[in-house]
Amino acid sequence: MNQDRFNRVIQEMEREGISQMVVTNPHSIHYLTGHYEEPYERFWAFYLNRDGRHSLIANRLFTLDEVFGTEILWYEDGQDGPELLNTCIDHTKPLGVDGGMAARFLLRLMELNAAPSYCLSSACMDRVRAHKDQEEQEKMRRASRINDAAMAEFKKLIRPGVTEREIAGRLQEIYQSLGGEKLSFSPSVAFGGNAACGHHEPDDTVLKKGDCVLLDVGCVADGYCSDMTRTFFFGEASPERRRVYETVLRAQEAAEAAVRPGVPLREIDKVARDVISQAGYGEYFTHRLGHFIGTEVHEKGDVSPSSDLVAEPGMIFSIEPGIYLPDDVGVRIEDLVLVTEEGAEILNFYPKELQIVEAE
Amino acid sequence: MNQDRFNRVIQEMEREGISQMVVTNPHSIHYLTGHYEEPYERFWAFYLNRDGRHSLIANRLFTLDEVFGTEILWYEDGQDGPELLNTCIDHTKPLGVDGGMAARFLLRLMELNAAPSYCLSSACMDRVRAHKDQEEQEKMRRASRINDAAMAEFKKLIRPGVTEREIAGRLQEIYQSLGGEKLSFSPSVAFGGNAACGHHEPDDTVLKKGDCVLLDVGCVADGYCSDMTRTFFFGEASPERRRVYETVLRAQEAAEAAVRPGVPLREIDKVARDVISQAGYGEYFTHRLGHFIGTEVHEKGDVSPSSDLVAEPGMIFSIEPGIYLPDDVGVRIEDLVLVTEEGAEILNFYPKELQIVEAE
Repeated sequence: MNQDRFNRVIQEMEREGISQMVVTNPHSIHYLTGHYEEPYERFWAFYLNRDGRHSLIANRLFTLDEVFGTEILWYEDGQDGPELLNTCIDHTKPLGVDGGMAARFLLRLMELNAAPSYCLSSACMDRVRAHKDQEEQEKMRRASRINDAAMAEFKKLIRPGVTEREIAGRLQEIYQSLGGEKLSFSPSVAFGGNAACGHHEPDDTVLKKGDCVLLDVGCVADGYCSDMTRTFFFGEASPERRRVYETVLRAQEAAEAAVRPGVPLREIDKVARDVISQAGYGEYFTHRLGHFIGTEVHEKGDVSPSSDLVAEPGMIFSIEPGIYLPDDVGVRIEDLVLVTEEGAEILNFYPKELQIVEAE
Repeated sequence: MNQDRFNRVIQEMEREGISQMVVTNPHSIHYLTGHYEEPYERFWAFYLNRDGRHSLIANRLFTLDEVFGTEILWYEDGQDGPELLNTCIDHTKPLGVDGGMAARFLLRLMELNAAPSYCLSSACMDRVRAHKDQEEQEKMRRASRINDAAMAEFKKLIRPGVTEREIAGRLQEIYQSLGGEKLSFSPSVAFGGNAACGHHEPDDTVLKKGDCVLLDVGCVADGYCSDMTRTFFFGEASPERRRVYETVLRAQEAAEAAVRPGVPLREIDKVARDVISQAGYGEYFTHRLGHFIGTEVHEKGDVSPSSDLVAEPGMIFSIEPGIYLPDDVGVRIEDLVLVTEEGAEILNFYPKELQIVEAE
């Protein structure tokens, strides 16, 4: 158990007026206990009471050690996990539950009359997890260093005749050779007009001269995620596409320069959005500027026009503006940024100036 | 919309006495509509009423086409998806929800008084999805054919000095070269004693003479999953380990031979379990015999001592007995099996007899 993190969560529960809650997000349980378990369809929960009581509810098939330092209530396949949880719950007080808890478990708790009412309590965990401690910051730096080194290797894969799928198929191996464990998300590898589609999956599109090559990639190292985007051009870049690129780069750098404690995240979004709008591309920047990241590649919290968060030391999020001209070009440039006491530390070092890969 | 599948789901709703339900599993929505959308944290739902009414609730950022053939209710980021769903719901009747629906959406529906009560209705979808139609059967065959071809390539990676991680890093590329799209699950590549650990992740363990090499692998092709396990030996196999292997193989083949319409799945499990128990390894076969599979690698339904399902034509599940001797050896052999009108069709053809890879 990480006592400091546990205490911070209890403080958040006090702030929210929640006296007991059930955490089911396996990343949140890992954050508190140091043990990651992927439960698939099985019930895996951490019960916390503001009075300090806490218990894990675990299936006997989990890899968890019996001598764990926290009370574990064990059930077996065929037994009822939520019913076991119910033995811990104070039936007189509202129960907080994770926003992602599966309905089959929540409805079962309701059927058992576990509590007089239920509320969402994920925010208590999310707010604590949003502030990375020193150990986490170091792991995030390392994962991004691997991503920087990997990007240099990925650039070498950009050559005449290559397909998106071929590049995508090589990423895993390259990350592993550099010390990454696995991909942190399904990567984007998109050529030309494909880069303008939000959800394009790498396919058999063959690289053509003049295409942009958008690579949105990341790995997991020691449990923490990296996430970076770079956009290259192959052979040449038309004046319009250069203009798009330079606009995104200015927006990205302006937003990074605006990060410091106390700045509302929606203002950081606005800095980037204004640069792009003033260049006439406002309608082609179709998504939020960034998202929080840590042990999950998308953690709660975003950098967007509707964000009500304010930058605080220890927060790590992406800054990733883009411009997407349908059937023509998509450019996105993304770094991860750590808010420090004085300002910000950019976790990625791979160059951002426009790079044209020779088409031989 | 696939009208035949839709009608079968409506029949299941009638059987269960459910007049309306909300489907949130994106694979189930894909199954009915033909459109797969990965919604991440966003709300994505298909409302079905037994009277034939149905609507999709979709975020504007989804890749869904406006002219889709089914009514779509659109919301934007910042708007309330469940509230929009609530406009479809008959507030006088119980509402079925998917077992995996996130608590934040279910609690919101409850707050809106969407229905007088709520029940789990996933079984209506799951029972229909468990019976693969002709089109699905053909896709499952193809995904398994790719897996067979891939296994032959993976065997070539077993050579002196190789690590688990190195082999795991090559799988994606090999699948893609054979027409697979991506891995269907995080693969098991385990040497020697590592193969006896249920949740072992590929690491830097170096292959040693006499080790078993357990490969539990699969890919996605045209949206459908393959899943197969083979266990090789490197250089030699001790008499005890051969005995383990031959026991698993006998169990696996006996179970496959027992598959035909009308047989309870727990009896198929028992056939394999009895072979292993009679050989004295009963306590080392620690998991269910198999699981259903289709567009998801683990679908609802299993082949286990507690299963209450009976084999019916169109069902596809794995048959994967194993024996795991701690710190020594782990052997598992797995095929996918389709229940036919007369018996069973084994979807995998890669050989199962004991193979010893030369250690040079």
